[in-house]
Amino acid sequence: MSTIEQRLVELGHPLPAPAAPIASYVPALRTGNLVLCSGQLPIIGKEVVFQGKVGHDIHEEHGQHAARLCLMNALAAIKAELGNLDYVRRVVRVEGYVQSAPGFSKQPVVINGASDLLVQVFGDKGKHTRIAVGVSELPLNAAVELALWVEVDPA
Amino acid sequence: MSTIEQRLVELGHPLPAPAAPIASYVPALRTGNLVLCSGQLPIIGKEVVFQGKVGHDIHEEHGQHAARLCLMNALAAIKAELGNLDYVRRVVRVEGYVQSAPGFSKQPVVINGASDLLVQVFGDKGKHTRIAVGVSELPLNAAVELALWVEVDPA
Amino acid sequence: MSTIEQRLVELGHPLPAPAAPIASYVPALRTGNLVLCSGQLPIIGKEVVFQGKVGHDIHEEHGQHAARLCLMNALAAIKAELGNLDYVRRVVRVEGYVQSAPGFSKQPVVINGASDLLVQVFGDKGKHTRIAVGVSELPLNAAVELALWVEVDPA
Repeated sequence: MSTIEQRLVELGHPLPAPAAPIASYVPALRTGNLVLCSGQLPIIGKEVVFQGKVGHDIHEEHGQHAARLCLMNALAAIKAELGNLDYVRRVVRVEGYVQSAPGFSKQPVVINGASDLLVQVFGDKGKHTRIAVGVSELPLNAAVELALWVEVDPA
Repeated sequence: MSTIEQRLVELGHPLPAPAAPIASYVPALRTGNLVLCSGQLPIIGKEVVFQGKVGHDIHEEHGQHAARLCLMNALAAIKAELGNLDYVRRVVRVEGYVQSAPGFSKQPVVINGASDLLVQVFGDKGKHTRIAVGVSELPLNAAVELALWVEVDPA
Repeated sequence: MSTIEQRLVELGHPLPAPAAPIASYVPALRTGNLVLCSGQLPIIGKEVVFQGKVGHDIHEEHGQHAARLCLMNALAAIKAELGNLDYVRRVVRVEGYVQSAPGFSKQPVVINGASDLLVQVFGDKGKHTRIAVGVSELPLNAAVELALWVEVDPA
């Protein structure tokens, strides 16, 4: 098991199985020294486990769990593309979309669920840029959608 | 005519004329081995032909048409930058924003209108990562906005 | 003072102090020949000076001011990463999220506040691709969130 995966296990977040490719798009791909993933939902198996609007149906703390679950699925997708998360040279960007109830403006708190875990796992090289925005609707009524970019060593 | 353009014609989707650059931004540009385009709307000529919220004003099937039309405009913009779509080494990313009625959560179905066409046209190298989110408002009341990244050979 | 910073001063937009890094994410980082920044808000010091929904609480002209202020914070973040804005080879992408009132569809007009300033400051190399979308909610009730990518010379 790679160092990064071992660290995830120690933190209580073992890597899930990667999702199968869906029709015309893929979970992750490499372009140059970047590996990008598709927008990930808070899914376990085939079930979206955090549904609804954060700030109304879902408390912001559960929104953080949802963001973390999206991140775990993103890491699984990137590992499937890359072979080993130890090849990650640094995390580059988190894109966090929070399905938000009217008037909810704590998207950064929600996405911290993912951002903080990245730094716990990857240390300084887990520090990333990010966007965090609130949207009215997400696929399958998911509470959060999140995409991740990482930089890897030259091929 | 390039192979890719010929394939678009065979599929019933001839490439439109590229939009003119608008003021301070450009339809597409190259950075390194990536060509990115600006967010494209479902426009023919100067008219937004799919307006309204998907799931209320616009049925999801028409949303798929809208996504496809955005994609055609994206490909026209990328061709204008690149000279020839045959230089596309692979499609990297689709960013799909769906102007969604409250409670509409089938953004992936809508954006499949673009994703599936990419694979029909480019084959395996048309497989891409993507984000698909629902937003409350889009420019000119467009049903969909879509941006595309492709990877090209080193200059 | 660098040429670009001097130009900003002449245009009445002196560069603000960069924001401090916040917890797990950073204001900007370099990957390859790109420098990306995190989503910036229309903040002066610690205060979000444009709050509310554009098209209802905030007129579109004030939305343009908000977009410009986000841009200034983005340029400050990129300068802090890069050392000198004269190292910018070209502006690559603006990502503009406008917190929009129901029915407001002039997001491009709002984001022009940033796009036009980029061209005033950087000339032709300020011309960029962009996305402009309307979202229902933004962090801290900000009127606009904006991220910027620039290309720099090889290290």
